[in-house]
Amino acid sequence: MNEAARLQPSADGTADIGGELHALVSRLFPICRSITGEGVRRTLAILSEHVDITVREVPSGAQVFDWTVPQEWTVRGAYVRAASGKVVVDLAASNLHLVGYSEPVARRMPLCELRTHIHTLPDQPDLIPYRTSYYSRNWGFCMAHRDYLALEDGEYDVFIDTTLADGALTYGEVFLPGETGREVLLTAHICHPSLANDNCSGLAVLARVARTLAARRIRFGYRFLFAPGTIGALCWLAGNEAGLSRIDHGLVVSCIGDGGGPVYKRSRRGDATIDRAMEAVRCDGREVTMRDFSPFGYDERQFCSPGFNLPVGLLQRSAFGTFPEYHTSADDLDFVRPEHLASSFRMIMDVVDILETDRIPLNLSPKGEPQLGRRGLYSATGGHTATSDITMAYLWVLNLADGSHCLLDIARRSGLPFSAIAAAATRLEACGLLGKSQA
Amino acid sequence: MNEAARLQPSADGTADIGGELHALVSRLFPICRSITGEGVRRTLAILSEHVDITVREVPSGAQVFDWTVPQEWTVRGAYVRAASGKVVVDLAASNLHLVGYSEPVARRMPLCELRTHIHTLPDQPDLIPYRTSYYSRNWGFCMAHRDYLALEDGEYDVFIDTTLADGALTYGEVFLPGETGREVLLTAHICHPSLANDNCSGLAVLARVARTLAARRIRFGYRFLFAPGTIGALCWLAGNEAGLSRIDHGLVVSCIGDGGGPVYKRSRRGDATIDRAMEAVRCDGREVTMRDFSPFGYDERQFCSPGFNLPVGLLQRSAFGTFPEYHTSADDLDFVRPEHLASSFRMIMDVVDILETDRIPLNLSPKGEPQLGRRGLYSATGGHTATSDITMAYLWVLNLADGSHCLLDIARRSGLPFSAIAAAATRLEACGLLGKSQA
Amino acid sequence: MNEAARLQPSADGTADIGGELHALVSRLFPICRSITGEGVRRTLAILSEHVDITVREVPSGAQVFDWTVPQEWTVRGAYVRAASGKVVVDLAASNLHLVGYSEPVARRMPLCELRTHIHTLPDQPDLIPYRTSYYSRNWGFCMAHRDYLALEDGEYDVFIDTTLADGALTYGEVFLPGETGREVLLTAHICHPSLANDNCSGLAVLARVARTLAARRIRFGYRFLFAPGTIGALCWLAGNEAGLSRIDHGLVVSCIGDGGGPVYKRSRRGDATIDRAMEAVRCDGREVTMRDFSPFGYDERQFCSPGFNLPVGLLQRSAFGTFPEYHTSADDLDFVRPEHLASSFRMIMDVVDILETDRIPLNLSPKGEPQLGRRGLYSATGGHTATSDITMAYLWVLNLADGSHCLLDIARRSGLPFSAIAAAATRLEACGLLGKSQA
Repeated sequence: MNEAARLQPSADGTADIGGELHALVSRLFPICRSITGEGVRRTLAILSEHVDITVREVPSGAQVFDWTVPQEWTVRGAYVRAASGKVVVDLAASNLHLVGYSEPVARRMPLCELRTHIHTLPDQPDLIPYRTSYYSRNWGFCMAHRDYLALEDGEYDVFIDTTLADGALTYGEVFLPGETGREVLLTAHICHPSLANDNCSGLAVLARVARTLAARRIRFGYRFLFAPGTIGALCWLAGNEAGLSRIDHGLVVSCIGDGGGPVYKRSRRGDATIDRAMEAVRCDGREVTMRDFSPFGYDERQFCSPGFNLPVGLLQRSAFGTFPEYHTSADDLDFVRPEHLASSFRMIMDVVDILETDRIPLNLSPKGEPQLGRRGLYSATGGHTATSDITMAYLWVLNLADGSHCLLDIARRSGLPFSAIAAAATRLEACGLLGKSQA
Repeated sequence: MNEAARLQPSADGTADIGGELHALVSRLFPICRSITGEGVRRTLAILSEHVDITVREVPSGAQVFDWTVPQEWTVRGAYVRAASGKVVVDLAASNLHLVGYSEPVARRMPLCELRTHIHTLPDQPDLIPYRTSYYSRNWGFCMAHRDYLALEDGEYDVFIDTTLADGALTYGEVFLPGETGREVLLTAHICHPSLANDNCSGLAVLARVARTLAARRIRFGYRFLFAPGTIGALCWLAGNEAGLSRIDHGLVVSCIGDGGGPVYKRSRRGDATIDRAMEAVRCDGREVTMRDFSPFGYDERQFCSPGFNLPVGLLQRSAFGTFPEYHTSADDLDFVRPEHLASSFRMIMDVVDILETDRIPLNLSPKGEPQLGRRGLYSATGGHTATSDITMAYLWVLNLADGSHCLLDIARRSGLPFSAIAAAATRLEACGLLGKSQA
Repeated sequence: MNEAARLQPSADGTADIGGELHALVSRLFPICRSITGEGVRRTLAILSEHVDITVREVPSGAQVFDWTVPQEWTVRGAYVRAASGKVVVDLAASNLHLVGYSEPVARRMPLCELRTHIHTLPDQPDLIPYRTSYYSRNWGFCMAHRDYLALEDGEYDVFIDTTLADGALTYGEVFLPGETGREVLLTAHICHPSLANDNCSGLAVLARVARTLAARRIRFGYRFLFAPGTIGALCWLAGNEAGLSRIDHGLVVSCIGDGGGPVYKRSRRGDATIDRAMEAVRCDGREVTMRDFSPFGYDERQFCSPGFNLPVGLLQRSAFGTFPEYHTSADDLDFVRPEHLASSFRMIMDVVDILETDRIPLNLSPKGEPQLGRRGLYSATGGHTATSDITMAYLWVLNLADGSHCLLDIARRSGLPFSAIAAAATRLEACGLLGKSQA
């Protein structure tokens, strides 16, 4: 079924998957998100239109490992007005203008004082940066450096209408049960405001993956997590410690809608099955650039901390911090493209196919080659110079099906595509030449 | 004795080994061989003039693993005659003209029907290809594409005078007992008709190796197998399963008479002693190109199937399928040259020397260096800038003779030739500085 | 304390360490040393001005493993005088003129006989070579090839006023006890006559390292060995077998005063901590060129013989045998430079710092990242594109502090300098986030 689905993408309605994903990104983009608050709840509500999401709330003040869940941040408005009455910065124009978790302010101050609370990007003078101050009480504005330079001396009214009060941290979880008790974790951070690639793209693509898998028969259970960065992942980990041993594979997904990469950062283990699956997959025919684990990035930092060391890697198109639009107002709805969202979706579905399909085949006729010719698997005429990739796939699978190689191992060693190896294994199983071990 | 023999190649009559080998190839070339039949028997009879061969026959219909021994094929003649009376293809002109295992035919047919039974090489229009149809009853002719294009419309008389009947599969075996119960397997396929490199060359060289070793004191027993490809190897494996655990090293030899390569394909194990010995040997001073195992090729496919996984590699000059003469009428007596046959013979004898000589030396004076100077093994004058390769060989052997390195390991790590390391070990043993462990 | 000392090199009087080291080399240079005799004793006496050296003597004739301690060599003078009365070679002009361990001679002989006892360097006609004949009784002179060619036919008076008689082999040892029972071995050969780089430089630098460490609190005990090459090292090994298991790290130091390299030859083990520490250290900002072990060189040959296999490598600037001055009269006081001696000293002190500092940290908060921000170890403002090396060091240490990685491992895997990793670990320990395992 999976095979057929891949060959006929329109069969499950993925014909214009790119357009559909971009439309979803466009709905998520305007919401003013942070690590807590209504923005997260509204985002989860939209995603829930696609897949059945369980929304969980953890109260402010709860201890999660070395951390404390912060107060909930509510934002109603924020602007800076010159003495002339001209509004020089306004949250209504861009969610990025206000530093995340800014405390309430309503005060007149001279430019010199205001300046110490303004963040800009001198090297990218037209762009608004993205800044937060979650765990240190503060306030601030972000603006284009060009506008900042144009500020005239004088007094300014600063108005930040926010509340920091006990409430909750919100995250969403989807679980699609599989035939076995083993699980795959797929997660995207939900805490960034109007940044299209980082990470409306990840939220949209994973929600669509969940909807697609919900309609399939699956071997693994799939657990989708839409949670605020760091503190959200820690909340989930703290609440699910007992079940972590069920997770065989995991991916953190972010910045998945631009045309770069893809780039994959291996899990801390470095040789997990997910690491080798990402090596086998292609994106629009391109190989995935493989990077070794490092402890900076998204929530793989938490999943791969030494106390958990889960087999979780990070999948991106352009790697965070390497593209000029990163964490600026240029990460907008033009930066992510339908065709890139579609190819990212297909790549993740292909990885899922690999995880679902991978197994350890066992050659039931291991002494010499079995006679493929009488089963129609080998050319009846001998003497040709070259052999086909299909025949080579049969020969490789049979040769390495000694109980110590999975299909991913065989694909890697043979240099043949995983799909060719998997197809050969399926055919050989049908012929009774191959049995299955546990994957 | 081996040392002396190598230094004085004429001592055992190898002065014109190249000429002798080419003469033997020339006698084998005209015979019409297939996987069964008189061609194999006549070939074994000629090889028996050089070395004592035990001829074995396995009856048609015998089960060998997943296979059945086919009926014996007897061929008396085959031709195609145009309505004009002109014979357009004739087995008498080339053994390659008839598809191997063609069933008997005596029938007139129009050109359009005949064409479906003709094999050519459009890209090499002057050459006749080599084709077989062992396990699917069929018939056919191979011809030069240029001649094929010249066939005129009309009726043709097709006459194939063959018999497919119960009989036997024939193969030959030579066993030279050694001082230990361990064995080396050397094998060449005997089933190809008039192809000089593939594999009259392998048959001739291995027969000559057998004759040379028969006159030597040898540590290993050497088992030579001259058997039809695939089914012959399977017959031998099926009949000798109990003894396979005695095989420490093995080589499949084919296409050994041209001027390319040499190319060695490692055993499935990848790090067998034979794999490392081939890395240490030279052919006319050239290193051997090393390739990793793949499950396509000659009978290493059977020996390296997962149920056996024997330490057997494939040695060739030009690798099969990579030279334009491969499986065509251009693989003739001009393509194989006396000097290449001679250097291939010497290379195999050098590998045999390595296998015979390799051992795990044990330093009997392991604390500090022993005083080589008073044994005449070190320069009496100190202070020179460089040391000789001979001294370095002593120092390397002593340093690594801790019971966990064989001479091949020491040669590889030191970068010195195996022969230098072996000579140093022999000298150090004579001095009482080194004892031998089991190899 | 070590940290502070490194930041303020003048604090322990190392401000002009280069000048001080060159002055010491200059005092050692003129002494006529060999593997036994007064030259060694005078050298040890000078080194004793810097550090408390225990002088040990082993009697001639003593058996050490496969060797016998030779007779002691005393040299009073040596020259060759032409019939004209002109002295053509004189030990008084250069200690290199006399072949080491020359037996006494007082005889007139023709030039043709004299020539068989003269060593020159035809390719470096102005330089005197260095030659010895320790274990084979002989005599000889070394001279510039240009002077050798100018010798006129005729009779020559050869006068070598030496004694070979029972006495002792002398070596010096310094032991600085540490807090643990584990030891570091640092050794330089003391047997070469007037060769400044090989090895007055090694003697001077190690004596200065000993003096510096004598004033520090140290975890390891440091054992300094100033011994004649080969036979001296063997004497020490024979006398200290029971204690060898206490040696965790070791360095042989020679040719450490020129401007080349540095070059480090790994221990026979190849992955000893000292091997990885040398990979982490820098010399004037340059990486150390790493070479694999080979059994030719200095006394690492003895320490790394298979019966001991100690974790001892060889540290040099230019590798022996590779620079034109090697073992010639050009290895003089101009060839070694104060600045190179100083940078070599600092490099060895940095290696000592690594050995002293290396440990296996243990993350006490291993589930997720601990909250670095509230401890002032993380930027309060989030959203920046890049993170600092300091933050990365915290993250790497925490992530790999699982009890199976030492700081050297973490430095290697992170690509950050060892000093940055060590500083981060110290800070994290102070915060209570990290505990120490045994190194």
